Amino acid sequence: MAQEDIFKKLVAHCKEYGYVFQSSEIYDGLGAVYDYGQMGVELKNNIKKYWWDSMVLLHENVVGLDSAIFMHPTIWKASGHVDAFNDPLIDNKDSKKRYRADVLIEDQLAKYEEKMNKEVAKAAKRFGESFDEKQFRETNPRVLANQEKWNNLHTRFSNALNDNDLAELKQIIEDEGIVCPISGSRNWTDVRQFNLMFSTEMGSTAEGASKIFLRPETAQGIFVNYLNVQKTGRMKIPFGIAQIGKAFRNEIVARQFIFRMREFEQMEMQFFVRPGSELDWFEKWKETRMKWHRALGFGDENYRFHEHEKLAHYANAAVDVEYKFPFGFKEVEGIHSRTDFDLSQHEQYSGKKIRYYDPELGESYVPFVVETSIGVDRMFLQVISASYCEEQLEKDTRVVLKLPPVLAPVKLAVMPLVKKDGLPEKAREIIDELKFDFNCQYDEKDSIGKRYRRQDAIGTPFCVTVDHQSAEDNTVTIRYRDTMEQERVAIADLGKIIGEQVSYKKLFGKL
Amino acid sequence: MAQEDIFKKLVAHCKEYGYVFQSSEIYDGLGAVYDYGQMGVELKNNIKKYWWDSMVLLHENVVGLDSAIFMHPTIWKASGHVDAFNDPLIDNKDSKKRYRADVLIEDQLAKYEEKMNKEVAKAAKRFGESFDEKQFRETNPRVLANQEKWNNLHTRFSNALNDNDLAELKQIIEDEGIVCPISGSRNWTDVRQFNLMFSTEMGSTAEGASKIFLRPETAQGIFVNYLNVQKTGRMKIPFGIAQIGKAFRNEIVARQFIFRMREFEQMEMQFFVRPGSELDWFEKWKETRMKWHRALGFGDENYRFHEHEKLAHYANAAVDVEYKFPFGFKEVEGIHSRTDFDLSQHEQYSGKKIRYYDPELGESYVPFVVETSIGVDRMFLQVISASYCEEQLEKDTRVVLKLPPVLAPVKLAVMPLVKKDGLPEKAREIIDELKFDFNCQYDEKDSIGKRYRRQDAIGTPFCVTVDHQSAEDNTVTIRYRDTMEQERVAIADLGKIIGEQVSYKKLFGKL
Repeated sequence: MAQEDIFKKLVAHCKEYGYVFQSSEIYDGLGAVYDYGQMGVELKNNIKKYWWDSMVLLHENVVGLDSAIFMHPTIWKASGHVDAFNDPLIDNKDSKKRYRADVLIEDQLAKYEEKMNKEVAKAAKRFGESFDEKQFRETNPRVLANQEKWNNLHTRFSNALNDNDLAELKQIIEDEGIVCPISGSRNWTDVRQFNLMFSTEMGSTAEGASKIFLRPETAQGIFVNYLNVQKTGRMKIPFGIAQIGKAFRNEIVARQFIFRMREFEQMEMQFFVRPGSELDWFEKWKETRMKWHRALGFGDENYRFHEHEKLAHYANAAVDVEYKFPFGFKEVEGIHSRTDFDLSQHEQYSGKKIRYYDPELGESYVPFVVETSIGVDRMFLQVISASYCEEQLEKDTRVVLKLPPVLAPVKLAVMPLVKKDGLPEKAREIIDELKFDFNCQYDEKDSIGKRYRRQDAIGTPFCVTVDHQSAEDNTVTIRYRDTMEQERVAIADLGKIIGEQVSYKKLFGKL
Repeated sequence: MAQEDIFKKLVAHCKEYGYVFQSSEIYDGLGAVYDYGQMGVELKNNIKKYWWDSMVLLHENVVGLDSAIFMHPTIWKASGHVDAFNDPLIDNKDSKKRYRADVLIEDQLAKYEEKMNKEVAKAAKRFGESFDEKQFRETNPRVLANQEKWNNLHTRFSNALNDNDLAELKQIIEDEGIVCPISGSRNWTDVRQFNLMFSTEMGSTAEGASKIFLRPETAQGIFVNYLNVQKTGRMKIPFGIAQIGKAFRNEIVARQFIFRMREFEQMEMQFFVRPGSELDWFEKWKETRMKWHRALGFGDENYRFHEHEKLAHYANAAVDVEYKFPFGFKEVEGIHSRTDFDLSQHEQYSGKKIRYYDPELGESYVPFVVETSIGVDRMFLQVISASYCEEQLEKDTRVVLKLPPVLAPVKLAVMPLVKKDGLPEKAREIIDELKFDFNCQYDEKDSIGKRYRRQDAIGTPFCVTVDHQSAEDNTVTIRYRDTMEQERVAIADLGKIIGEQVSYKKLFGKL
């Protein structure tokens, strides 16, 4: 099945089984905003717990924080977001539609690629097994012509972005003859910068309310609390502050389901170190974070590092952890060596000294920062993408979410074989015993086979069936999601069998 | 100690020990917004888990949800918030300061009360033990005069609020001669309505962006997802949807620390029932929720129900759970029978049928709703208020947070008696064994006595001291926060001893 078909099915599956709903759906939705349903919220919470505990419980020198979304507006001046957190926008004068200029050019690049791929596909079909794609790409004149166009455009585009040259972006759009997808016309306005922060008015003083922003990242909440946490927590460098929270960006082109949303959640950790040691810590956190991803068991080959070619103004090293989504390798997490940029800016704008007295060195300095930053929603999409399977069985197909048991929303479904003879009561007794420890679901409707399929679809790792034998000898059948194997076990052992499989401790053992 | 002094100390304590910081403090703060520090975030998370698990794990028919803060703007038209979620504001023309008209009048009522209380206090001092307060209040002419003023003003004020009569509010302010606390003048503007919702602009279409709101309550996110959850989760009435999330209100007068903030977090559960059964369910949830509060062990006498005299337009029954804060009995949670108001409004505004087919009745209806709504931040303040103690010991005073162990941020501090002889290593071995299960803190600085006090101040229920005997027989001293008793126990038993005390299961057993 083509990768984009898999992605479409996955999105539909998320809706059908209560993982992700379009926000405000009964009002025809709200663009690039999503709600997590009864299953989604549990998966999301489990992902957050995996991250939080692996940061805060497992590292003696990492503590948490929960700073507010609302912050003093000067913070975003200091961080550079007021002046530089922009997208280049262009309007088509005929359709009155607005576009991101860089996205229009990226789409044009994709068109050249598509043309090349089409030539390759046609030739592959014609030549069959003897086809040598590499040679074909290096010699076919139509491929070569498109490759040259791609190269030229790519170079020009990269330069324009590096120079932040808005006039050149417009010139590229005109030179390439890019048309508006709605009007088909080339009648474009100039390119203008558009700030991505949402703003609102706080208070209502007679002199006028003050304009504040919804934070576009959680990191600044950590930076402005650095002194408070360091002092009240008696933290010694190196130490980290971890935070999970919402952030907001007014994306013009929000895409790929929950991959890029206007309202999203971040899990960020800022690690404060001695100047000069930051690149060692950068390497250490790179490894630690990759291990964390791979511990989930989705296949080491599906993850890779992507080094940033161009560094942000605050960084002296940066790398992404990428995962192979159905739409290609994409960023899930970023690890950045942010230098002392943010703390120094806050020193300057707030007028407060933000220093650490290092007793070993006998001197004070502005700490350097290594950041690990991961999107909860992206991680959610990564987990769902990696778990979604369609399996061809002997008689039918089953759709199963092979979620790591520790992340599965429902750990255990308990099913009476029939709705009589005291089996429902027996099933409920089991739930009453286990519900304090695990999210359990009771299910008595339809055939056992159908019930198994439903649990497969939401990713429940264990199904327990109560039959007539259960009443006699206090045993049940436990059925494992991934292997579909069944086993007869004592009811008294269920807590232990399931507990071991769904424990975070087991996962942490791999870190 | 006076109650307001206790409250001031408590606020200072929260800052000093990393529980709550003023938001953007290095930028001189942001009004009525607070950040949770390294201890606060853990306590807050533990409170949220207590609520979530008691709702979702313990009730087979309650599931979760995590809807976005951003919602379609028409939702707030349907809910009534666009038209009716207002505060009456008035400006003083001399100081240019803006006030809530109702708060100015409430302050005036408080002044009459204060006058009466002063008379009572004076007399109490004069008459000593023979003083009969009730009789004094019923006969003293000065008290009676103020009581009459209070009664008249209270009646007039209630009527004006009920009638939403802004001109009458202004007239009251003028008739009472209320002056601006800044300018001292009575030069007031008219009273105007001010909507409490924060708004922002989403998107950037050339035709103009759309105005959306930051949700002022999480409940509507549940209502607009009712159909999605009911259908994809195959839920049968009665059932509930639980949600934890941020909400925002542009309060003009935000007060009492984290009691009333502009950005806050709610834990709301909407329970959908058959029409006509809602008052029975209202009673049931009243009891269930009171039990939940009292299970924390802060004394049953410190909680009470407060029935609403005037019901909101959507409710046919409403009650608050109040707790005795240092500043008096105040609402922590509200339980409301919201009828079918919200779902019916969304039917009307969205044009979608929001009905439940009841197989037992053989008919469809719009479900009725019973809501339980609690503020995370208020609950946090309640727990801190109830836990904060200053204890006079033989030689000194200790400040201790007697948090329920299950809610305590740090469960266990491990301390080597001295920083040598392998004791620090032994202490770290214990932490390495237990850190997967509990939030542990290692502490080797200062005398053991000082370390105990520090742990008392953050509420750590267990301190474990590693001494020279530990190396010989693998035992340690465990010291209990509340009794300060010490006991020698095997290191191997620590997990079990602590695990039992800090388990949610133990708390759930009381529900």
